[in-house]
Amino acid sequence: MSSLERLSFNQMTADPWSLERAVRNCSKSGTPYIGVWRHKLGDDVAQASAMIRRQGLRVSSLCRGGWFSAPTAAERRNRIADNRLAIEQAAVLGAPVLVIVSGPANGQTLHDARTTVLDGLLEVLPDAEKAGVILGIEPLHPMYAAERSVVVTLKQANDLVEQLASSAAGVVVDAFHVWWDPEIMPQIERAGGRIVGFHVSDWPVPLPAILMGRAMMGDGVIDLRKLRQAVDATGYDGPIEVEIFNDEIWKSADDGLLELIQRRFIEHV
Amino acid sequence: MSSLERLSFNQMTADPWSLERAVRNCSKSGTPYIGVWRHKLGDDVAQASAMIRRQGLRVSSLCRGGWFSAPTAAERRNRIADNRLAIEQAAVLGAPVLVIVSGPANGQTLHDARTTVLDGLLEVLPDAEKAGVILGIEPLHPMYAAERSVVVTLKQANDLVEQLASSAAGVVVDAFHVWWDPEIMPQIERAGGRIVGFHVSDWPVPLPAILMGRAMMGDGVIDLRKLRQAVDATGYDGPIEVEIFNDEIWKSADDGLLELIQRRFIEHV
Repeated sequence: MSSLERLSFNQMTADPWSLERAVRNCSKSGTPYIGVWRHKLGDDVAQASAMIRRQGLRVSSLCRGGWFSAPTAAERRNRIADNRLAIEQAAVLGAPVLVIVSGPANGQTLHDARTTVLDGLLEVLPDAEKAGVILGIEPLHPMYAAERSVVVTLKQANDLVEQLASSAAGVVVDAFHVWWDPEIMPQIERAGGRIVGFHVSDWPVPLPAILMGRAMMGDGVIDLRKLRQAVDATGYDGPIEVEIFNDEIWKSADDGLLELIQRRFIEHV
Repeated sequence: MSSLERLSFNQMTADPWSLERAVRNCSKSGTPYIGVWRHKLGDDVAQASAMIRRQGLRVSSLCRGGWFSAPTAAERRNRIADNRLAIEQAAVLGAPVLVIVSGPANGQTLHDARTTVLDGLLEVLPDAEKAGVILGIEPLHPMYAAERSVVVTLKQANDLVEQLASSAAGVVVDAFHVWWDPEIMPQIERAGGRIVGFHVSDWPVPLPAILMGRAMMGDGVIDLRKLRQAVDATGYDGPIEVEIFNDEIWKSADDGLLELIQRRFIEHV
């Protein structure tokens, strides 16, 4: 049974909520961490950071950087600049991790797009090192290869982290994205010491939609506890983020959502 | 550029067509092979087989066997019996290959379901050997792990074939299911001599639906030619099946469909 001391509420679970409302609900419910999304920050990141601290919360991660695999050189330069900005924002928020979603093929071959991702990571790595922010490379489910991430397995993320060879590079394990993988257990073990985030939600059957069809923990088929135990066994003892992309939850999200999440977290994670 | 001599029309591309209509359209259009689905066969398989031969066609494969991972012992025995029937049907049709879709987790752990799949294959393998039919293990895209197949990578299929160690066991490579895999090229090479089928369709962006959202070759992002060249380089020179699960094509399928498939096949495969 999980206690709540490692629970983090990832804002995307209730995207219609403002940052203020999300923080207030976390605080009221005794949820110690929040996973922040950049589009919710507003212009004054220092003010947002102060507001979060005043409510007694810590930021588990900032979502998201990456999207390196732009098809033109000009767009790639923009992506590098945006990642530098994201690293700064993470530092201001006291977020130890910037979650990296690598980017899709975007008209390139998968091989070329994957090379572009490594190049982009190498370019912004010194900024992350200087800022004390870890780039958390999150493999996405293979069904997102065409539109979101050419990094689709934990093996790839582990390979990238080895190539980056820096304490400012790690991996984020999201149960929804990796549960199907026959290599997941040895790759979690291999990631030991480099896991900087663990995300949970569930895979409902049938999956109602590709992007917005994730389910609350317990409403699907993922053995979340087994994955958490494997991640914990590597020594990871940081926050566990509940990140559910589900438009039904968005529509119905009220102030009781955190209590439901806490119950399911204790029961299933 | 591909010639048409290896082209096979998989019936699922126009499921509303009867077997007779599909065979007639293949024959008229000069498509030499048909991939047959069992639910289209009717009661008299010998008659269906004779009808296909009269029209000058050959059967590239029969879809499908497998679904071994039933949750109860009784259901598993039913699955074994059904696979034995499918092997007989393939033999009557002169289909060299029975396509195997392994089956989903079905309430078991992925590990247990994968063990059940191996057990099921081992049980029906002697029947396949005796009938001269090859069990073609087809890894499905990981987004089908919960509902259709716990075998989700070509590496797994190759591992299974190694464990089966029989000339009646091989792998089927379907571009839609495997294109995202960072290990696909080395695993295709490893499969050399054991590839018994190659299926093509395309991955549109965005993917409109999980099951029925596949696209006509050229309407998506898969580098089909590169995959075909890799498969051919292993020595595979058998039929290439066009298998598109797409309800728009089902709705609009008319007798011109084969001509469109042929154009796209020549252009993109």
